[in-house]
Amino acid sequence: MQALMQDQPLLISSMIAHARRVHPRAEIVSRTGAGTLHRSSYGEVERRARRVANALLALGVGMGDRVGTLAWNTHRHMELYFGVSGMGAVLNTINPRLFPEQVEYIVNHAQDQVLFFDTSFAPLVAALAPKLSAVKAFVCMTDRAHMPAGLPAGTLCYEELVQGASEDYAWPQFDERTASALCYTSGTTGNPKGVLYSHRSAYLHSMGLCAAGSAAISHRDSCLVVVPLFHVNAWGMPYAGAMSGAKLVLPGPALDGKSIYDLLRDERVTMALGVPTVWLGLLNHIDSEARPALQELCLERMLCGGSAIPPVMFTRCRNTLGATLMQAWGMTEMSPLGTVCSLLQSHDKASEEDKLRVQARQGRPVCGVELALKDEAGRRLPHDGVATGRLMVRGPWVLSAYYGSDASVLDEEGYFDTGDIANIDSDGYLQITDRAKDVIKSGGEWISSIDVENAVMGHPDVMAAAVIGIPHEKWQERPLLVVVPRHGSSPTRDEVLGYLASRVARWWLPDDVVFVSELPYSANGKVQKMKLREEFKQLNKPV
Amino acid sequence: MQALMQDQPLLISSMIAHARRVHPRAEIVSRTGAGTLHRSSYGEVERRARRVANALLALGVGMGDRVGTLAWNTHRHMELYFGVSGMGAVLNTINPRLFPEQVEYIVNHAQDQVLFFDTSFAPLVAALAPKLSAVKAFVCMTDRAHMPAGLPAGTLCYEELVQGASEDYAWPQFDERTASALCYTSGTTGNPKGVLYSHRSAYLHSMGLCAAGSAAISHRDSCLVVVPLFHVNAWGMPYAGAMSGAKLVLPGPALDGKSIYDLLRDERVTMALGVPTVWLGLLNHIDSEARPALQELCLERMLCGGSAIPPVMFTRCRNTLGATLMQAWGMTEMSPLGTVCSLLQSHDKASEEDKLRVQARQGRPVCGVELALKDEAGRRLPHDGVATGRLMVRGPWVLSAYYGSDASVLDEEGYFDTGDIANIDSDGYLQITDRAKDVIKSGGEWISSIDVENAVMGHPDVMAAAVIGIPHEKWQERPLLVVVPRHGSSPTRDEVLGYLASRVARWWLPDDVVFVSELPYSANGKVQKMKLREEFKQLNKPV
Repeated sequence: MQALMQDQPLLISSMIAHARRVHPRAEIVSRTGAGTLHRSSYGEVERRARRVANALLALGVGMGDRVGTLAWNTHRHMELYFGVSGMGAVLNTINPRLFPEQVEYIVNHAQDQVLFFDTSFAPLVAALAPKLSAVKAFVCMTDRAHMPAGLPAGTLCYEELVQGASEDYAWPQFDERTASALCYTSGTTGNPKGVLYSHRSAYLHSMGLCAAGSAAISHRDSCLVVVPLFHVNAWGMPYAGAMSGAKLVLPGPALDGKSIYDLLRDERVTMALGVPTVWLGLLNHIDSEARPALQELCLERMLCGGSAIPPVMFTRCRNTLGATLMQAWGMTEMSPLGTVCSLLQSHDKASEEDKLRVQARQGRPVCGVELALKDEAGRRLPHDGVATGRLMVRGPWVLSAYYGSDASVLDEEGYFDTGDIANIDSDGYLQITDRAKDVIKSGGEWISSIDVENAVMGHPDVMAAAVIGIPHEKWQERPLLVVVPRHGSSPTRDEVLGYLASRVARWWLPDDVVFVSELPYSANGKVQKMKLREEFKQLNKPV
Repeated sequence: MQALMQDQPLLISSMIAHARRVHPRAEIVSRTGAGTLHRSSYGEVERRARRVANALLALGVGMGDRVGTLAWNTHRHMELYFGVSGMGAVLNTINPRLFPEQVEYIVNHAQDQVLFFDTSFAPLVAALAPKLSAVKAFVCMTDRAHMPAGLPAGTLCYEELVQGASEDYAWPQFDERTASALCYTSGTTGNPKGVLYSHRSAYLHSMGLCAAGSAAISHRDSCLVVVPLFHVNAWGMPYAGAMSGAKLVLPGPALDGKSIYDLLRDERVTMALGVPTVWLGLLNHIDSEARPALQELCLERMLCGGSAIPPVMFTRCRNTLGATLMQAWGMTEMSPLGTVCSLLQSHDKASEEDKLRVQARQGRPVCGVELALKDEAGRRLPHDGVATGRLMVRGPWVLSAYYGSDASVLDEEGYFDTGDIANIDSDGYLQITDRAKDVIKSGGEWISSIDVENAVMGHPDVMAAAVIGIPHEKWQERPLLVVVPRHGSSPTRDEVLGYLASRVARWWLPDDVVFVSELPYSANGKVQKMKLREEFKQLNKPV
């Protein structure tokens, strides 16, 4: 029997229309490339998004057409989030830090009809333009006075385009399963792969992000969005902001400790979202300048993900910033939110050490994300905190196939294989122990490279570390530890292994340590262990 | 273009399955009619709900069949919430405080196949049974030892039914627009009307309830659900509890001040939901017994709705309980959540008086609820805090038609007319000024009966008050104030009008005051102004 409720589709335009009605004056503050602050609001973003929609219609963009962006976190990028998706076109945010050939691949694979870009990417766009066959219009996201030289012929000026278009536009209503955005994920091998989100997935994901037990975004927050708008929809924050009425603070390109500190203080930020390296830079700035952070800031919580968090950071954030650092886990294929780590009421009486042990896990799934562990044969493993297997996910904001391919990437139960190795405890807390491709198989058992890395990161002379498996005649693989020493220090192999000996299982102890000046990183800031394995594959010694 | 995300339906079973996976040990504590506490958990509720589903299948209940309940807030009622809806049948929760003829009407109109009832309603069920033609099975919600005498022949015992059924059951997957539950709303005239909810509406509504800017239900909460499970899905709390992992405390039939106080203290309640009269009883208990509430309780917030809140209650809750009283507004036709009142960050620096003025409003809509004001001709009115008109709502958890009728109850823009008169300010705060049928039309202008009632409730000798319009030759209608004096006091007409004179507009001042020992209330606890109008229609005097 069908129910008798209203059949209102869940659309991205309905989130920004809600914002216009209910919190039109809540602010969107952006720092421009020039360092000045631009103050906008949800009311203004909605009005200008309607102009964007009219401008795109005039350029011949229709339902389902892809529109690309190469842009920082600014109010104009926000306007495109709602203008492009709101009209039924597909917003393709591109990571400008990728190699130029990857950017070219993405624009051509997506068949972007229009490409919007910030002034700082003008040289990149100028170089690629002749090869971007589908692009009918290039738009530089600035005003006439700041248009850079050397742009492709006919490049449009964003402010002229927006101001020349009418505000008179009614957001169209359509099926909530319509494509809204397209993000490419760059693996370590092969071409980037596109994830094609829907209005429904974006809307439900925002509700998941706003849930009190999750990131708890609300109208009482001022949120610093360090995570880039070109990276998995900035973890969904443009949508969650519109849905909740949270003030958004967009830092533009400057992510150094001082720039971040000043924004936190001046914009009364309560919640900040980003990767660990940014918070490390912030903490180091506060320490080196002896800033009175506890007095000057009102930061309550930090959502952190994208790479492993050194355990000591939880304590530093608490003591230096007065803020709770919450780990989150997700991936491009998941919109991205999967889990958020916060304590249960029953943890309140636990020791600080026990609390830290919980906080070091990746957290519990938001309702809407279903996690399962499977062994190599596809059999379910128990959620007992011990059994370790492939992490599988299912839910309305998880992909079913990559863009341009009809082939489902799901198993017969409808789960997507995350490529992570993990365990889940009986309270639902997830612990990622490795990437499947990075796990070290020694004597028929698995060694978690991440656990060993986390342990060694506690050594005062270690700035960065990676553990990789290298081939071994008897054991199949054995771990090798690659260390970047802290500037000015020179730890020895025996010191480091001695430190680790009491912290990891005896047979997990790396056979050797090599010291390097830096680790190879991908454009997304992840250590490229494949390169390390290639470099050190001859180094092995028998136990 | 269709997106490439997973097509997972939003089902009630997926909420309780999430609870089983992620917070199986979070508690459901119920006080039985006998006063003892029963401790269950989401894990156990899910397991027993699967038994309920198997038992219903064995009784011949299939997809879309209606299953009725006459029951208090207990773990067994929770099991039916998930067992009945989860299997695809429709849970019809019935208000046992209705007149027996109304209960009979509802069971027959819904064509309930099975009727579950608590032992205290055995006499009611026994009396009605011969007239309930569709009911194939009666189930008394207790164990064999507590089965009362005089039940309809063949009445089943709930515990035997559940324990006799297998746990082996996989929740079926189906269209999320399938009917899940049916609640009847009892107007002051005519027969009750049924609202047929969907799995989708229940799921989205729960996400709205869990939003940090709304009721903010999370795994860190212990929630006292005073609002009955038979009343609009207990404001959606069984679902929101499963979704979030909040501990639920179900008070059973005892709602006196002491019973509530003991539960708040013993179950470490952080959040309580109910109507103002229950909180008034609690506050009076604390005062009269001089309970050390601030030391003994950890209550943080109270969600309150269903009738107007005397302004002084906000201060009493803050001072006596240390809790924030949050007003909420909704209705059966809206699942029920429409708005929740909480302050903006910008209010933090406001005076206590200004904060109280905000808190006295009904709050801001959750994303998913769209409010509009329309005048008598159906034209939109501005949200400027002044323009007052009919309050219209639209959204995925608002009804489109009543059960048993094909006729849409929506206007041409898809809005449902709430029957309330309201204004909305530029920050989105709603203020209900009257029920359309209770508004007093004097000299072509409207007088808000609720505003005058709120003002007079500040008088120390007034326990309850109602303002009604009575016919007037010159002005069409003029207000009459009906007052229940506080026990032991005897205020005079002139005292009360003198008190009001400085608090309401001159022409809003009632022409007269009548003192009565009690007001007539409906089964849902609302003052039946129609009865008062009938009683006092001859009382009028010229100004």
